[in-house]
Amino acid sequence: MLETLGYIAGILTTVAFVPQVMQIYRTKSAKDVSLAMFLLFTVGVALWLAYGLMTHSFPVIAANTVTLMLSFVILYFKWKYSKTSNT
Amino acid sequence: MLETLGYIAGILTTVAFVPQVMQIYRTKSAKDVSLAMFLLFTVGVALWLAYGLMTHSFPVIAANTVTLMLSFVILYFKWKYSKTSNT
Repeated sequence: MLETLGYIAGILTTVAFVPQVMQIYRTKSAKDVSLAMFLLFTVGVALWLAYGLMTHSFPVIAANTVTLMLSFVILYFKWKYSKTSNT
Repeated sequence: MLETLGYIAGILTTVAFVPQVMQIYRTKSAKDVSLAMFLLFTVGVALWLAYGLMTHSFPVIAANTVTLMLSFVILYFKWKYSKTSNT
């Protein structure tokens, strides 16, 4: 029960980034998405991944691997679309 | 050492939302911020908080209480500014 709660929480905070990636891809605009937020967040997620690897925690590794990839995509979009917009 | 890594990771993925809140407040625009992302994320963080309370984990409780508040502020901004922009 408790473990299931943790898994559901982890899945939600991980897949949450999918609609953000999709929205930026669709609108080609990431002006209102904070670069500082995603820089701090990406470093934090990378440290969570290191923590998961060092503690051999599969759920922490899995969730943070996916979130890290999605964060990188958002950072890439932010960089890509800020060159062509009035950010 | 390992515990410190977890704390630094938690602090980064928590404070990351502060610049996002500040940016929306400054620009009065949250058009590119995905509503679906923050809805899913907020529910996920609320479940993480419940998980922390049930497992009596202070770091999980602390990090997710702060993140939950920041997520609510972002959702409020998204709602507030979407009424006056062409979202």
